[in-house]
Amino acid sequence: MIILGIDPGTARCGFGIIDKRGNSLKTVTYGLIESDREYSQPERLEIIYVEINRLMKKYRPDIMAVERLFFSRNVTTGMTVSEARGVILLCGALAGVTVMEYLPAQVKSAVTGNGTADKQQVQKMVKALLNLKEIPKPDDVADALAVAVCCGASIRMQQIKGQQS
Amino acid sequence: MIILGIDPGTARCGFGIIDKRGNSLKTVTYGLIESDREYSQPERLEIIYVEINRLMKKYRPDIMAVERLFFSRNVTTGMTVSEARGVILLCGALAGVTVMEYLPAQVKSAVTGNGTADKQQVQKMVKALLNLKEIPKPDDVADALAVAVCCGASIRMQQIKGQQS
Repeated sequence: MIILGIDPGTARCGFGIIDKRGNSLKTVTYGLIESDREYSQPERLEIIYVEINRLMKKYRPDIMAVERLFFSRNVTTGMTVSEARGVILLCGALAGVTVMEYLPAQVKSAVTGNGTADKQQVQKMVKALLNLKEIPKPDDVADALAVAVCCGASIRMQQIKGQQS
Repeated sequence: MIILGIDPGTARCGFGIIDKRGNSLKTVTYGLIESDREYSQPERLEIIYVEINRLMKKYRPDIMAVERLFFSRNVTTGMTVSEARGVILLCGALAGVTVMEYLPAQVKSAVTGNGTADKQQVQKMVKALLNLKEIPKPDDVADALAVAVCCGASIRMQQIKGQQS
């Protein structure tokens, strides 16, 4: 099962694709969709749209897992990130894939077992679980892989619950 | 000059298209993009994407004018409306049109001369300025026409300023 994890943002949007077979997780690819400050918000959203569609066509994920926003501090940043999220969710719908959303605490809990884990703990676990030589940089990329891992774990939990019932 | 005004929302997204020639404003069409609660957020965003693209192709607006969000109360609603805004701004970028954004107070000020005008005052002025027999319903549609009128007025102001300098 191919899972595309996304850490949404307008200037920087991280993505990470993993292949989950049974209990094994394999990293397929990861990277960053970036746009300069000189671009307008509509232009930035278009860049995200083009790049996410390119990933959907090339890797044909079964599931798109997107980080849900939890914002209490900067409302303006929250609004532009939500605009990017809108375009990302749209790409999932257009490709007909299942779209899952996870709050930051859910991602931390699934990856480290602790919903209040710090960034370093999450990144170390992502590196270990995906057998990576280094922690992917920048943070947006590591976060996107963490969302994909979280999605893989939550699907496994659902399957286990399904077998028990 | 054809202006497409949009009042963004996920369940209900109002649109209004006006034709501005010199000082005269003519209403081309207006309506509502709606989606039921049974749809997921990605599916709702896809409906908005399809409908806005349809409007772009049919009416070929020169400018897209979108209401900017000012939210202090309901952050959750603000996030889903921002997601719809992201898809709408994307449609503008994909069609290569100029995208303008206006805060609610700017719309009220441009339409009534008073940035703190109430909904009824704005709607009465929209009806008068566009020579409509009735105030368009629901509010989302009247709001979208108000954004288009605001855009027409702000462009006129920019032209006047341009001539003076």
